[in-house]
Amino acid sequence: MRPLERLGRWLTLVLLMALGQAAVAGGEAGQLRGTGDLGVIVERATGSVQIVDTTTRESLARITGLGDLSHASVKYSRDARYAYVFGRDGGLTQLDLLTRRITNRIIQSGNSIGGAISQDGRLLAVANYDPGGVKVFDARTLELVADIPAVDDKGERSKVVGLVDAPRQRFVFTLFEAGEIWVADFSEGKEPRITRHREVGRQPYDALITPDGRHYIAGLFGEDGMALLDLRNPDAGVQRIMDGYGRGDEPLPVFKMPHLEGWAMAGDYAFMPAVGHHSVLVVNRRDWSEVARIPVHGQPIFVMASPDQHAVWVNFAYPDNDTLQIIDVDTLEITGELKPGPAVLHMEFTPRGEHIWVSVRDADEVHIYDAYSLERLGRLNVESPSGIFFTARAHRIGL
Amino acid sequence: MRPLERLGRWLTLVLLMALGQAAVAGGEAGQLRGTGDLGVIVERATGSVQIVDTTTRESLARITGLGDLSHASVKYSRDARYAYVFGRDGGLTQLDLLTRRITNRIIQSGNSIGGAISQDGRLLAVANYDPGGVKVFDARTLELVADIPAVDDKGERSKVVGLVDAPRQRFVFTLFEAGEIWVADFSEGKEPRITRHREVGRQPYDALITPDGRHYIAGLFGEDGMALLDLRNPDAGVQRIMDGYGRGDEPLPVFKMPHLEGWAMAGDYAFMPAVGHHSVLVVNRRDWSEVARIPVHGQPIFVMASPDQHAVWVNFAYPDNDTLQIIDVDTLEITGELKPGPAVLHMEFTPRGEHIWVSVRDADEVHIYDAYSLERLGRLNVESPSGIFFTARAHRIGL
Repeated sequence: MRPLERLGRWLTLVLLMALGQAAVAGGEAGQLRGTGDLGVIVERATGSVQIVDTTTRESLARITGLGDLSHASVKYSRDARYAYVFGRDGGLTQLDLLTRRITNRIIQSGNSIGGAISQDGRLLAVANYDPGGVKVFDARTLELVADIPAVDDKGERSKVVGLVDAPRQRFVFTLFEAGEIWVADFSEGKEPRITRHREVGRQPYDALITPDGRHYIAGLFGEDGMALLDLRNPDAGVQRIMDGYGRGDEPLPVFKMPHLEGWAMAGDYAFMPAVGHHSVLVVNRRDWSEVARIPVHGQPIFVMASPDQHAVWVNFAYPDNDTLQIIDVDTLEITGELKPGPAVLHMEFTPRGEHIWVSVRDADEVHIYDAYSLERLGRLNVESPSGIFFTARAHRIGL
Repeated sequence: MRPLERLGRWLTLVLLMALGQAAVAGGEAGQLRGTGDLGVIVERATGSVQIVDTTTRESLARITGLGDLSHASVKYSRDARYAYVFGRDGGLTQLDLLTRRITNRIIQSGNSIGGAISQDGRLLAVANYDPGGVKVFDARTLELVADIPAVDDKGERSKVVGLVDAPRQRFVFTLFEAGEIWVADFSEGKEPRITRHREVGRQPYDALITPDGRHYIAGLFGEDGMALLDLRNPDAGVQRIMDGYGRGDEPLPVFKMPHLEGWAMAGDYAFMPAVGHHSVLVVNRRDWSEVARIPVHGQPIFVMASPDQHAVWVNFAYPDNDTLQIIDVDTLEITGELKPGPAVLHMEFTPRGEHIWVSVRDADEVHIYDAYSLERLGRLNVESPSGIFFTARAHRIGL
């Protein structure tokens, strides 16, 4: 063989190896794939997340270095390619689900609790405890767009809770100490128009927005009722609902505050956790009056409707947190129960509702169940899993 | 320069060119990107579609060779990577939105009208006129899984209309000549369990399923009423609703049958086109009784609720088909009107409702409007555009 031929063969081999590498890489991170069946699971103890595939029901990657992820939550870019992970330590991380890499990360405050993405997908808002307020960032670059200190009339800062996106390019949030609900309207550009609703009640601790983006409801820790703002008629002001619904009538120890974003809207009813009580409240969505109380296994934390609005799934606070119960929306009876294991922290339905994924923190597992037969279909190893978030949330108001 | 060096340089050049090609290709078809902001627009006259990006508001590619696309519709794989285009000529085309290529295509009947994808995303069903029935395919390979001839008790075949997916791995469809509604349950595997509901009414011409997948409603061309099946209680059978709602009380010429899948559910109401009349019917969703009739510009075709359920948009049959009207859900008044141009055939909201895309067939344009200010934000050249379908449909029951 002549030297030229040898060189040719050698170069061919190198080229083939390079292509081979690319092919392998294509099967892993960086492969061409749809992003509609992806999700992120928070590993709260280790500052990491796993990227999962809901079609193959497997974990694709583990990403570390996201800081303190206790109470972390996740939002998605409108193309469902990027996850935004909001950490407890003020960290805001932009994660590329395709290359499976952190593409941007900032520490935007000392202490934060959740975020939201605007209706058009261009703005990210973060709710901060310290310093109390909301910061708004460009979703692509994470550059600061607006800083909204939560300062009341006495000049004092409040912690911000219950931050959500709302139609017409608005963010809505609640000031814990001041007892106010604010609406920040970005429809005219980067300078928000702020509307303040004062004296909504004592110690609003969390809030939710209905799936149509119309009703914003804040739970009150300091009073026996809730505060409702109709975002289609904000001039009508904040209205008190559910007065005397039971928050304060018996001084039960509250082991863990329920998550209001977990309220379930199904048919004519909203299903909500009764704070401190072993019951789920059923509320008429027309007038927000109480329709029924369903006795359940423990203090409910998340109360979630299935996508077909046929069932409501409930998990519970310690010491009853090994259990899930399933309520039939038509009969308001408990029709199913599962014992996934120790510390069931969160659950997420696949977008069309065939499966439900469940975080079992102290088993270091995520379980996947058939949402109808309750058969367990799979199990993933995840370290101290908490929140599970699928990319279909990119397309939903308030999620 | 020695021959070896020259060869080395030449090979380096070839390699760089090859890489350059790859880089260019990466910026076009085959680039890594999220699929949550993609969509397909049908070009009905030319057997082609355009793939569009709702973030940049531009067309990415034009794909030809899809056969007869009059009345074509599109469904999406659960990863939102593949579009399934159901043609009028029995063609079923699997289109990869990332490589922008047809990855599979079959002619599965002589004449068909729409399709559906199962809750788990594994099965595709197609409604056929000729031969009348439903064929079910593997969504990945397009291999035939089940063939369901629509044969009535007399042994005669019916055309199949109103095919939709429903929770619990079911497909529901209607037999035009036989006047029957069938439910095909694939929850036990590839052999469906078929339930037949007979004598539902004369000439059921189309149907819809509510967004929660619970109520299936067929419109009757031969009678003044509609047929309702509660899919949570199918044993209760089919119920007649909207008797005497006006379909038959005045023999108005019907220029174009309305599309029932366009019915809008918003708040407590369903909004539906009154066949042949210049009005939109408002129906109570609890008991399916008529609440109001809203006079509109022409014979309504599509009646669509905005994602925030605040507005209902309506387009019209010839000769009033240059107009869109907007109904406020709270006041039931017309609050806006647009004249996009000749032959407004279809419209689609972006998933969170900030924009609406509108097909203006005889202008060969698709217009993009701000859904609140009604300002026109963009315009695309599309040849005889009809249906517009965004990938967020992948995550919705019945879409």
